[in-house]
Amino acid sequence: MLWFVGLGISGFKSLPNQALKILENADIVYLEQFTSPIENDDLTQIENTTTGEFKIAKRWFVEDGKEIIEKSKNQKVVLLSYGDPYIATTHIELRVRAIEEKIKTQSIHASSSITSMIGECGLHFYKIGRIATIMNDMKSLITPYYVTYKNIIEGNHTVLLLEYNQDKKFFLDPKEALNDLIETENGQKRNVVKPSSYAIIASRIGFEDQKIISGKIENLNKIDFGKPPHTIIIPGRMHFTESDALKVLGKCIDEPFDNSEKTEKISHQMMKKYVPMVQEALEEIKPHYKNKKNFQDILENAELYIQDAEKFLEEGQDEVAILSIGYADGLVDALRLAKGLDPKM
Amino acid sequence: MLWFVGLGISGFKSLPNQALKILENADIVYLEQFTSPIENDDLTQIENTTTGEFKIAKRWFVEDGKEIIEKSKNQKVVLLSYGDPYIATTHIELRVRAIEEKIKTQSIHASSSITSMIGECGLHFYKIGRIATIMNDMKSLITPYYVTYKNIIEGNHTVLLLEYNQDKKFFLDPKEALNDLIETENGQKRNVVKPSSYAIIASRIGFEDQKIISGKIENLNKIDFGKPPHTIIIPGRMHFTESDALKVLGKCIDEPFDNSEKTEKISHQMMKKYVPMVQEALEEIKPHYKNKKNFQDILENAELYIQDAEKFLEEGQDEVAILSIGYADGLVDALRLAKGLDPKM
Repeated sequence: MLWFVGLGISGFKSLPNQALKILENADIVYLEQFTSPIENDDLTQIENTTTGEFKIAKRWFVEDGKEIIEKSKNQKVVLLSYGDPYIATTHIELRVRAIEEKIKTQSIHASSSITSMIGECGLHFYKIGRIATIMNDMKSLITPYYVTYKNIIEGNHTVLLLEYNQDKKFFLDPKEALNDLIETENGQKRNVVKPSSYAIIASRIGFEDQKIISGKIENLNKIDFGKPPHTIIIPGRMHFTESDALKVLGKCIDEPFDNSEKTEKISHQMMKKYVPMVQEALEEIKPHYKNKKNFQDILENAELYIQDAEKFLEEGQDEVAILSIGYADGLVDALRLAKGLDPKM
Repeated sequence: MLWFVGLGISGFKSLPNQALKILENADIVYLEQFTSPIENDDLTQIENTTTGEFKIAKRWFVEDGKEIIEKSKNQKVVLLSYGDPYIATTHIELRVRAIEEKIKTQSIHASSSITSMIGECGLHFYKIGRIATIMNDMKSLITPYYVTYKNIIEGNHTVLLLEYNQDKKFFLDPKEALNDLIETENGQKRNVVKPSSYAIIASRIGFEDQKIISGKIENLNKIDFGKPPHTIIIPGRMHFTESDALKVLGKCIDEPFDNSEKTEKISHQMMKKYVPMVQEALEEIKPHYKNKKNFQDILENAELYIQDAEKFLEEGQDEVAILSIGYADGLVDALRLAKGLDPKM
């Protein structure tokens, strides 16, 4: 029998009450602490609750899983881990392997830092987009950068988890991660994470010394965030109840604002450039085609497609809007080229 | 003093152990059960743990919040709720109001159905996109439909929470919600939720009779999912470890497959239609403009822009690709209109 038990986010005291008896009666309890650090007091309390063997399990040991699977065949084994157990995909894989080996498995879920953190910051959970992790040895932050970009243009908030390495006692500093994102911005230029962007640093959620500090990245850069774990949240569109809550529940060194206003969709950026450009090119070419019936149709069509493009954008049909403005541009430029005029740029 | 305490997903037994003493010592415990049903046995166990007043709090009562705030000024008050407390934005708002009234607040987080469900299905949590809720009285499912669409084209999974109304003892049937989504599909035609799409129904997660059934929607339609709560998950791109886990952890009435393969981006759908169409229109018009210098430039430009459009799409610059094919289309159609030919459709 193999139990996957979540410790929750606050150490021993966040352990679900049904788990106490299971720890007590287990033949072996493995404590996995590679996803987040666990305090010494909690370690002692957990150890005192167990009557069987108590072992610390390192990452390689859980990934390898052989000993855990072997012992679970005849004994009551618990794998205890920080937060909710299956946020770590390693644990899902171990469970699947155990079931395939005909071992009975059970789960006890517990509080997760992800849901807890969002609520503690006062953000609405249904506005969280895809989550990304930032590791220290990543060659580039292009992936978390584009996860953030795609979330922001939909108005979603982005949770950026930061690497924790138990063996090296290493936790990625949130300032370092933010500065690496800004470096990525300098190459990608999508207006996603700039020194003037708003970010939230949620530190030690669930611990007594929990801290939520938010502000412009350039100002967060001056702060010492202290002991890990830390998580970065890049908010997207903020409902006023969210900014109000953030101000009351955390410390805002700058007034919260909407990052999504600055990060315009590519389609919107393009329309802002092309609609006035095509309109101007059209007005310029009109006098050249006075009283020419077939060409009047083309001019009228161009006019209509410019209007349609704006209507489609308003309706959120961005792709059709771009197609329409491109089409209008083509009609107008054909008329220009036919008269030996250069296309507008 | 006001405590926001999560009950977790499994009733009394999922309550974090630190919460037991807090319930015992509270002057008043309000149990909110409008976000999900709570079993009678659990109600009794909770009530037996309290020594102060114990009251069931309806939705309007928590939203109004006046009594809770008033009592918290001089007494130890607990608001106990299913899952993790701040998934319900009502609770965040109540906490903010309490703090503004100088009331001390504390949170005890617990297991949430969202993180638990994803792990129980064997899906990777970092692939969950924005969550949506389906309510029975929604005029249309356009919003959850497009949330799903946007998630799928990014390869993300979509969690669709279904309405639960405590007062009316009403829980939206997952089959009804799926069929309403298919109806929306028939109008929107984005290839998001069709009878042949893959869906997961996660039922009663955290309860003894938890069930995870997945398959093509047309086959799920024949199943009685029984007692609520149920949640729909529309998977996006599935890693093989995810499909393997889903098969071991749940019941798959069809082999799991990748919905995202069928749901093409709008930009890709448009390019598939327009590139051959513009190419054909161009070939047709060429003979009409033999040996006309200015018009040769237009024809060459059209050719180049068609090629560019395809190149941009390959590079992932979808918007520029659409602009280019639209432009080529405009150039060609201007030449057609000038000769009294209708534009290609």
